[in-house]
Amino acid sequence: MCAARCNSVLVTGCSRGIGLQLVRELAKSSSGPATIIATARQPADCTALQELSQTCPGVQIVTLDVEDLESINVAQEKVRSIVGEKGLNCLINNAGVEHSMDIHTITPEAMMKHFQVNAVSPLFITKAFLPLLQTAAAQSSGMGIHRAAVINISSILGSITCNWGEGANFKSYAYRTSKAALNMVTRNLAADLGSDGILCMALHPGWVRTDMGGPHADLSVEESVSGLLNVLSQLSDKDHGGFKDYRGNNLPW
Amino acid sequence: MCAARCNSVLVTGCSRGIGLQLVRELAKSSSGPATIIATARQPADCTALQELSQTCPGVQIVTLDVEDLESINVAQEKVRSIVGEKGLNCLINNAGVEHSMDIHTITPEAMMKHFQVNAVSPLFITKAFLPLLQTAAAQSSGMGIHRAAVINISSILGSITCNWGEGANFKSYAYRTSKAALNMVTRNLAADLGSDGILCMALHPGWVRTDMGGPHADLSVEESVSGLLNVLSQLSDKDHGGFKDYRGNNLPW
Repeated sequence: MCAARCNSVLVTGCSRGIGLQLVRELAKSSSGPATIIATARQPADCTALQELSQTCPGVQIVTLDVEDLESINVAQEKVRSIVGEKGLNCLINNAGVEHSMDIHTITPEAMMKHFQVNAVSPLFITKAFLPLLQTAAAQSSGMGIHRAAVINISSILGSITCNWGEGANFKSYAYRTSKAALNMVTRNLAADLGSDGILCMALHPGWVRTDMGGPHADLSVEESVSGLLNVLSQLSDKDHGGFKDYRGNNLPW
Repeated sequence: MCAARCNSVLVTGCSRGIGLQLVRELAKSSSGPATIIATARQPADCTALQELSQTCPGVQIVTLDVEDLESINVAQEKVRSIVGEKGLNCLINNAGVEHSMDIHTITPEAMMKHFQVNAVSPLFITKAFLPLLQTAAAQSSGMGIHRAAVINISSILGSITCNWGEGANFKSYAYRTSKAALNMVTRNLAADLGSDGILCMALHPGWVRTDMGGPHADLSVEESVSGLLNVLSQLSDKDHGGFKDYRGNNLPW
């Protein structure tokens, strides 16, 4: 992502995995955004993130518990003071949970927890940060991260269309359902925020070797994040309300 | 639905609206299922349902609170004793909630409540009644309500694809998201239960003049239910894992 296309990015869930790598890549690029806000529930516990913020002046750590509306509001106030009159260009809702449970092991509690973290939290984080995104959007034109964008990190496992045949082999009622719900949240936001010039879309990062994806996944976190950032840098009005993978391919709902 | 194609049907949420009309239509047909189990949270409060069960010997009322696992299990025991060795042919998950809330008025509590009632409850009701559906499925072949089926009453408002342009005019974050989630639950169930011979699919009843749909809706409840029953009677293996409207048209996810 070149600096001219984006002044500020906020990423949730940065203590590890894709979130941490997104911050790493954004920080090390000489043409990256001037301000990179990395949020985590307990950032003090994450040595890698602390080191990044000490060595990269653009990286700012903000505490944010995505399940806690009060924490979201406190974080918004901090981010408002960081980004100032320029507003926030790009909100990446990356924080999420995944516990694989099939038809025999699934519980109502797991369904509710995944829905809360993976679908409800991104909606209320977006609502809270909306004034900052609108401030950024008012200063530019067109559609893309140079102006304002809400990027929801979804999954192909949330594609109802793809959940069939071989695509249905991975059993995870709670995760799949919560990501389908996130896709609907994304589409609702796109319908509502497009007129403000805020691009909203869902991104599938691939199956990545993180704590969540496990050791047998297809992609290194570097490969996934490199692809994601390439897709982000090229977003335009035709991607608004869409669902793409880390290679830029469109996915069906 | 002709009797030869279905011995028993269970419908949830029968105190009013589409659920009540489904029971009415099934009961008045001379070729309808021999056993029609109508569930409601507080059936004693529903005069229309009580009258139906008194005048139609095939209609049996069972108390079922879809949000309460204990209530679901108690209901399952009662239904098991009603249907006996024939098992249950058709489970219609019809109970649901809808409170329209846009981006300004939506609350986390409303998101969670809709998800619980509209997506989680149908999953755990299906799990609880699965042995009865499997019993019925083991006695027949092919796919359809003559054998065993789980019918989830969804909505075109749960179609992520259709939530765009004019299709996005109706704003209801909680309802839309919960029905997209239900569609994913349906698809998961279809992938898991197809090998048992249990057909699983989602049905859109149209926009109906009920307490939920309001007075300005397109269809009378009679028109909707007549269409739904016609679709149900014709289901076959090609409909497994699908999403249809009350006229039998396929809907996109």
